[in-house]
Amino acid sequence: MILETLDVSLGERSYPIHIGRCLEERLEEQVQADLAVGHRLVVITDSNTAAAQRTFMRKAFRSLPVLVLPAGEPTKSFKHLERCCNFLAETRLDRGGRVFALGGGVVGDLAGFAAASYFRGIGFYQIPTTLLAMVDSSVGGKTGINLQAGKNLVGAFHQPLVVYADLDTLVTLPEREFNAGMAEIIKHGLLADGDLFRQLEAGPRLHASSNELAGVVGRNCLIKAGVVAADEREESRLGGRALLNLGHTFGHAIEAVSGYGTYLHGEAVAIGLVMAARLSAQLGKVDANLPGRVEALLEAYDLPVSLKKPLGVEALLTAARKDKKARSGRMRYILLEEAGKAVVAEGIHETRVAGLWEQVGAVRR
Amino acid sequence: MILETLDVSLGERSYPIHIGRCLEERLEEQVQADLAVGHRLVVITDSNTAAAQRTFMRKAFRSLPVLVLPAGEPTKSFKHLERCCNFLAETRLDRGGRVFALGGGVVGDLAGFAAASYFRGIGFYQIPTTLLAMVDSSVGGKTGINLQAGKNLVGAFHQPLVVYADLDTLVTLPEREFNAGMAEIIKHGLLADGDLFRQLEAGPRLHASSNELAGVVGRNCLIKAGVVAADEREESRLGGRALLNLGHTFGHAIEAVSGYGTYLHGEAVAIGLVMAARLSAQLGKVDANLPGRVEALLEAYDLPVSLKKPLGVEALLTAARKDKKARSGRMRYILLEEAGKAVVAEGIHETRVAGLWEQVGAVRR
Repeated sequence: MILETLDVSLGERSYPIHIGRCLEERLEEQVQADLAVGHRLVVITDSNTAAAQRTFMRKAFRSLPVLVLPAGEPTKSFKHLERCCNFLAETRLDRGGRVFALGGGVVGDLAGFAAASYFRGIGFYQIPTTLLAMVDSSVGGKTGINLQAGKNLVGAFHQPLVVYADLDTLVTLPEREFNAGMAEIIKHGLLADGDLFRQLEAGPRLHASSNELAGVVGRNCLIKAGVVAADEREESRLGGRALLNLGHTFGHAIEAVSGYGTYLHGEAVAIGLVMAARLSAQLGKVDANLPGRVEALLEAYDLPVSLKKPLGVEALLTAARKDKKARSGRMRYILLEEAGKAVVAEGIHETRVAGLWEQVGAVRR
Repeated sequence: MILETLDVSLGERSYPIHIGRCLEERLEEQVQADLAVGHRLVVITDSNTAAAQRTFMRKAFRSLPVLVLPAGEPTKSFKHLERCCNFLAETRLDRGGRVFALGGGVVGDLAGFAAASYFRGIGFYQIPTTLLAMVDSSVGGKTGINLQAGKNLVGAFHQPLVVYADLDTLVTLPEREFNAGMAEIIKHGLLADGDLFRQLEAGPRLHASSNELAGVVGRNCLIKAGVVAADEREESRLGGRALLNLGHTFGHAIEAVSGYGTYLHGEAVAIGLVMAARLSAQLGKVDANLPGRVEALLEAYDLPVSLKKPLGVEALLTAARKDKKARSGRMRYILLEEAGKAVVAEGIHETRVAGLWEQVGAVRR
């Protein structure tokens, strides 16, 4: 049953996001409609999703060819991109072929990039099965893979035909991953929707079966879609899509220095949000009590607000400098002006940032 | 010295094609101008080009980092795409980075795809050093790599910032490759420019130092650019960019069945052009003497007009069916209505095509 439908307007490439529960039947209708007009169809997913969503897949996709990739971030590689493209060729997809990407951000990013590149672009559907993918990676059209040198360094802008977000797929999601998705939701509230932030503060704590979840997910998709529509290719210099990186320069540095796998992306972002709020308060941009409110809300979802183990300040600063969000050598930070409004800032002294790192548990070595 | 400058108009992404001789100085100016405003720059080329254009490269690029790829079609692979992307990361290119792609179609397609994908798209310059690349692959924005299943099955549309076509780089090009480029020039005349076709028939035979060459190359770029501008993403169903495939369904089949390497692309296309002209004449679409004129012109450039060794008719028909130009299972052929006008045709019986294959030396097995 579809509970909410949103439209992401990106010029010619507008598409709907359907949020609901028990969407297998809607997907089956989509499959039949596509087959009826001659589209060849395949499914790309990962091992975790294939195990957790066996029944869902059987109902939705029947006998379509399925490629099951290893679960986890290392799958976002050239090796698996090649594997995806060969799979599309082996299943004889032509220009009219379409891909169902079923899974979290890794599957969406990788299968989306394969769809963007195969025949220089075929259609694909996103069926995100993690909260993070529903409110973040499935919206906006960014697809891609990682290099040794950094995450998401290679990819394409490629919008899905439709996004189907089935909240029931979240029931089997580990609580830790659900919470990591909440970090991005809290981020969206902070950067663009003060009412959402206050609603989350007021509670109750959300879980996969919450009645409020469809509304919250929809609101988050709209926030992200609104920012993306205004700045599809991330070309705005002061704001635009860059604002979505609130907490992310810090978060990416934590992920890079700790080694991918120690923190879930959302957990690293949670610490980054604390740092961004504190930096904003230090600079007098926001109310002094905002950092404490941010911490309290993150902690309500069992998210970390400081490093689990000490990391080196210098290594973190270096990693942040390498982060691709740094343009032309000048470090840019996303700061808060209030709960619900973010801005881009440059010219912040690194000694100040080093102090912030120490506050969350980093050490000078 | 720039002899001709053309503008390819593709919406926001218009760019100039400079055709000339001794363009090292112009390139050096481009390099200095880019460096002055902070762009990080690299060069991607192949081993043949690096050997033939040593002096050119030293003058044009000074001490820029250079990646030298193995020469030849197998380089258009995921393996070397990954190598290119890692090279861009190792040389610390950011969003503002730019790539000089120096070489033939392989380098342009591969380095262009790397530039299209790195940071989801950075700028690149095309410096084609083969006649084929000057009049064909460097114009139109198609970039990509091959799969086991077929050529150019994976890629992106990505327009260069500028094309620098230095005719002096053709002096060291093997004559066989020059002639293969002439096949595409003859093709362009046949499909869109009867005057060009008649000019080529009238002679004299062109070579790398011909005074007429700049004009002919420019005219070919305009033909291709005109078709591309009208149908940038190959979405026109009847005509548009598909017309550029005159002779190519046949040519690709020859390349696939003979094993890549036996025929240069232009040589396979030459035989394909003969077949397309004969098919058009058989169907009463063109004057009965056109096939003979096409053959005579191709032979003037030592291009094959029949198979060098017999290939199986069935294998050729199967390969043509697999060719990606076949949409939704219906075979489409590009036919001639006159020297200078091509059209798309469907519904041609395969037995007729089998007969054409036999005429150029294929055998039933």
